[in-house]
Amino acid sequence: MAVESQKLQRIYAETGADALFLEQDFLRRYVTGFYSTDGFAVYDGNTCTFVADMRYFEAATEALKESGIRVVEGSFERAVSLVSGCKTLGVPYPFVSRAACARLEDRGFTLTDCMPALREAMKVKSASELGCIARACDMAEEGLLKTLPRIKEGMTERELAAVLEYEMRMQGADGTSFETIVAFGRGSSVPHHETGDTKLRFGDVVLIDFGCKTQGYCSDCTRTFLFGDDGKHGDFKEKYAVVLEAHERVKEKLVSGMTGREADAIARGLFAEKGLDKFFTHSLGHGIGLEIHEYPVLAPRGEEKLLDGMVFSDEPGLYFAGEYGIRIEDSICLENGKVRSFMHKTAHDLLIL
Amino acid sequence: MAVESQKLQRIYAETGADALFLEQDFLRRYVTGFYSTDGFAVYDGNTCTFVADMRYFEAATEALKESGIRVVEGSFERAVSLVSGCKTLGVPYPFVSRAACARLEDRGFTLTDCMPALREAMKVKSASELGCIARACDMAEEGLLKTLPRIKEGMTERELAAVLEYEMRMQGADGTSFETIVAFGRGSSVPHHETGDTKLRFGDVVLIDFGCKTQGYCSDCTRTFLFGDDGKHGDFKEKYAVVLEAHERVKEKLVSGMTGREADAIARGLFAEKGLDKFFTHSLGHGIGLEIHEYPVLAPRGEEKLLDGMVFSDEPGLYFAGEYGIRIEDSICLENGKVRSFMHKTAHDLLIL
Repeated sequence: MAVESQKLQRIYAETGADALFLEQDFLRRYVTGFYSTDGFAVYDGNTCTFVADMRYFEAATEALKESGIRVVEGSFERAVSLVSGCKTLGVPYPFVSRAACARLEDRGFTLTDCMPALREAMKVKSASELGCIARACDMAEEGLLKTLPRIKEGMTERELAAVLEYEMRMQGADGTSFETIVAFGRGSSVPHHETGDTKLRFGDVVLIDFGCKTQGYCSDCTRTFLFGDDGKHGDFKEKYAVVLEAHERVKEKLVSGMTGREADAIARGLFAEKGLDKFFTHSLGHGIGLEIHEYPVLAPRGEEKLLDGMVFSDEPGLYFAGEYGIRIEDSICLENGKVRSFMHKTAHDLLIL
Repeated sequence: MAVESQKLQRIYAETGADALFLEQDFLRRYVTGFYSTDGFAVYDGNTCTFVADMRYFEAATEALKESGIRVVEGSFERAVSLVSGCKTLGVPYPFVSRAACARLEDRGFTLTDCMPALREAMKVKSASELGCIARACDMAEEGLLKTLPRIKEGMTERELAAVLEYEMRMQGADGTSFETIVAFGRGSSVPHHETGDTKLRFGDVVLIDFGCKTQGYCSDCTRTFLFGDDGKHGDFKEKYAVVLEAHERVKEKLVSGMTGREADAIARGLFAEKGLDKFFTHSLGHGIGLEIHEYPVLAPRGEEKLLDGMVFSDEPGLYFAGEYGIRIEDSICLENGKVRSFMHKTAHDLLIL
């Protein structure tokens, strides 16, 4: 699924370079629809060319034969030969390395940043992109549903991650969209806990932050639950209800046209009312697409407007160091001015296994 | 496992900057031993500081408390404040983005490339790094051994990948070191085939290129075998024997002090003798460490010397478009002047399931 040619034309025009010169995996994929770990996508305003080395040439030629995208065999020299008549090349400044820039500047090219235009285009998803993300979300949720009955006392965080990743794969996923976080007990109080060898005990809080990819597009989901109720979780349950309220309030109150800061404030404001805002130690959300962290940003610093077709996470959380943490996250989008969640299959109400 | 302080001191001295300023995941991990998806590692010749945001601060403080590495909370501004007295910062040109460079240059810093010094240090592994890689290789091989009996007619490439990734995880792996490649039948003729929904049929060639990570360090392995012998594989078996001979000859003839080009020529020369070199469409190997593709390069362009302590792949292959492909790959290292393979558990001789 390559980007629509109109959109590519707009990115080109907004960048104002003689050609776009892209060597980042996710940007090559955005422009051509073809996945590879090497190569160049070059667009000169008329023709989009994918320069593939021998490892990818055969497959790319086959995959792109009716796409209007030309496939040529080669590497950097071949890509540069395609833009020999150009003075200015658009490259993505936040992703292009200093060394890659030097290699182009040494050939006499002037560089300009194409990422502002790419970002504008990429953050509003097409119907087919939304379809991919919806499928990635389904696979993640179905994977979790298949995993829940397999959760047993004494299993390690890593084993639970193994089962969940397997089940997502069996739903058709191409792999995880980031390193699966499984945290048992007080590990849950670390927002980016590293999944390890801690064993599951009766009464543990379990936090799972996970997602998968299909056709390059990501899903992102977090669920927090109890592995058995040992009767000592009154405080946890109270805080869970607050996080859930924040999560749901965002879905309800967030409308197209708000800024990322305003969206974040829906959750942060609720936590503040309860005197809990200092335990909400991260942003409300981030854009989701070919990368797990994209634009827009839903945070106090988020000045961009949130618009129809944008996909992002709604993930308020509270973390009590050394005790427990709670995060509830869906991948959501804006549609007809309002929030539509991609996640309906797994419970949001507190689950006690 | 942080880098030895002597090695860090040497990287610092060779770079010749007032401080090293690292914001790449794998380089932060190399310097501090701590895994995170954000943060800065700063070294001023005396003190190594890890700047962690709220998500990582608690865990990093705990993990690094006896490492001699200071942990402070913050983000870019905090990291910059640590080098306020410096004029020159060492950043890794092949990995630092143009935008990140601009952000530092705007503050008046002069930048210099620290990657040549880092690369020199990183390509020769310490005993504990070799230990991690050996464990990652064990996990990969054990994972494959557990997977083989579960391979069934009709299963898809993706399902086989799901089982293998699960089994590697169950051996203790932290995840895959790259996207698992499973290719059935003629898909094997594409060196970087994208694992898909092709179903396994009796008599298929099966090519699996896979690896996992532990403590950040990677393993890389490829095995090619037959799913049942349908009696039509005389040609395949002949070519398999040639690839295996190339693979084994590298292990036997490669000695410390050779260049990457000379190593590559061991395999390429054998293929040339048989008139098959045009079907060997990639390099013999690549360095393996915290990244799946590191230095040294074992290829016709590889002018670097291969030395004791370096870890790389030995992966000759032959690809016959539209028919089948064969690749046999071990992760190996140089020790006492000779090759030591990390992979002993899985068969190299042709396996017929």
